[in-house]
Amino acid sequence: MPQQKTHNGSSSCAIETALIDYPFSRLVSDDLARVETLLRDHPAGQHEAVSRAMDRLLGGGGKRIRPTLILLSAHLCGANISQAVIAGAAAEMLHIATLVHDDLIDGSLMRRGVETLQVNWTPAATVLTGDYLFARSAHLVTETGCIGLVERFAETLVVICNGEIRQMFDGNSSQTTVERYRQRIQAKTARLIALSAQAGAILVGGHDEWETALHSYGEGVGTAFQIVDDVLDFVADEETLGKPVGSDLRQGLVTLPVLLFLESEHDQDTVRQVLEGDRSEETVKRAVQAVAESKAVDEALAVARHHAEEARAALNSFPDTRYRAALLDLADFAIGRRF
Amino acid sequence: MPQQKTHNGSSSCAIETALIDYPFSRLVSDDLARVETLLRDHPAGQHEAVSRAMDRLLGGGGKRIRPTLILLSAHLCGANISQAVIAGAAAEMLHIATLVHDDLIDGSLMRRGVETLQVNWTPAATVLTGDYLFARSAHLVTETGCIGLVERFAETLVVICNGEIRQMFDGNSSQTTVERYRQRIQAKTARLIALSAQAGAILVGGHDEWETALHSYGEGVGTAFQIVDDVLDFVADEETLGKPVGSDLRQGLVTLPVLLFLESEHDQDTVRQVLEGDRSEETVKRAVQAVAESKAVDEALAVARHHAEEARAALNSFPDTRYRAALLDLADFAIGRRF
Repeated sequence: MPQQKTHNGSSSCAIETALIDYPFSRLVSDDLARVETLLRDHPAGQHEAVSRAMDRLLGGGGKRIRPTLILLSAHLCGANISQAVIAGAAAEMLHIATLVHDDLIDGSLMRRGVETLQVNWTPAATVLTGDYLFARSAHLVTETGCIGLVERFAETLVVICNGEIRQMFDGNSSQTTVERYRQRIQAKTARLIALSAQAGAILVGGHDEWETALHSYGEGVGTAFQIVDDVLDFVADEETLGKPVGSDLRQGLVTLPVLLFLESEHDQDTVRQVLEGDRSEETVKRAVQAVAESKAVDEALAVARHHAEEARAALNSFPDTRYRAALLDLADFAIGRRF
Repeated sequence: MPQQKTHNGSSSCAIETALIDYPFSRLVSDDLARVETLLRDHPAGQHEAVSRAMDRLLGGGGKRIRPTLILLSAHLCGANISQAVIAGAAAEMLHIATLVHDDLIDGSLMRRGVETLQVNWTPAATVLTGDYLFARSAHLVTETGCIGLVERFAETLVVICNGEIRQMFDGNSSQTTVERYRQRIQAKTARLIALSAQAGAILVGGHDEWETALHSYGEGVGTAFQIVDDVLDFVADEETLGKPVGSDLRQGLVTLPVLLFLESEHDQDTVRQVLEGDRSEETVKRAVQAVAESKAVDEALAVARHHAEEARAALNSFPDTRYRAALLDLADFAIGRRF
């Protein structure tokens, strides 16, 4: 069981999350346990190699942000919690499916401190396992019986895939702008988190103003989350991060800290060398260090805080319940975390 | 425009199908044109590289069996045709998505006389394009507004993925039995064709007996179709087939003609050599010829005919309309085709 991570960033353990215990998730811990049971269920016909892979993927932890948001949103809006549990499992499985294919495409070897699938598997097995998880996720969400939610899930998957494709075809690092970065993290992270935050309102139906407010909240949280992720890729230690530091830069992926670094007056030679194609370990290491020690880190975190503030503000119209308070906590966590 | 292929198998042109014109599809040709428009639509946000790929994938022809079945089934059951058009596009897109990933996994270079995506693209681009097509398919089917149909689609995708995974992990050719072959083609082909045949009844709702009958019909047609496909892989000419003859055996995939050949009294040395791993072009060529000239071909076709007969019989309970007649035609086509 992990020690609780606090907002101010003190953190003292590696990620071996077997149980989920954060301030914002305690209110829904029983529901989250039901989500976990659904995720770990091995339905008839599922090949045992996939079951083992699934156990490993789930055992690697993960903060279950998406199911947590769906459950808090469902409680906030008075939605059916059994439907929300199913939707939570569907969202997490969709997220895991995208990670499986992403890791394959990036050639990543580690995620959340656990070897990625393709370390031991062929690309074919990894592709098919990702496909299978997409299929299971699609099937799970239909079990909510809510066609509106199913449609939003499918729309979101289209956006995620479009984003990945755009990143791949147009990913020339020298052409990345803040606007393109924003679009990329919207597709990659913020959209599914926004859908998760909306889920309660969608399940209840007929409350457009709730949907709009929760969408803004989710977009803010998701954006803040991804920016902090991108900062941590420079400043975290590898044990806490669960993967090598500097992964993005090593792949030529330009994130907000780099964009802000390139606008600064710091010596940019090493970073530019990497962006121009020198991916030698020594150069990457020096470039990562240059960014990590620059003011770009604080500037990027300030942008993340701004989005988290917008997220918090979007909840102003909801009554002051403990579920709203937990959602506010989650927005704080998005920017305070160190893992 | 292709010449029409007739049931007795005479065929005189390569596959450059721009328009779909078979006896069984004429009744729904206007609806099929609407399906085609939906398939060729490039929604906002779709990367132009994907649009080009999609045009090529669709331009390669294909018989649009799944949309045709959905439309005939919808007319037979009195379902809403606009919903059926959307479902038809969703089914075809799902089918194309599975082909994109299959071709990547098999390393196939040609399909339907057109180069497969990965000939010019990286595996990453091919994986993501397949994912995107899965997502579009999922989104399309939700636009029918019929949660029952959406659920069956998702279930079917789970079965297809499970089948692929099973084939990959347990695909040891020496262990293939007729039972395993049957399971494999059920997952790979018959299940989605059966769902397509049922779609009209599912859209109308409340007619379990129609669903059951149309499911039997679709399973029979799908099974017959796949067996004939597997026979054609031995006996067709490459131009008509649109891909190299003997592809299955070259990949160590044991299909019904091979299983029946191995039960026969023909000289089995060359075929066994291939199954034991000798995939040299010369050995494969001789093995393909040995199977093609054996009685296993006629025996396999007899099994296909049996399934087509079962399919026809399943329609006995429906009134004798032209839509039923077209479905009967389609069952005949499944076994009579040479492409």
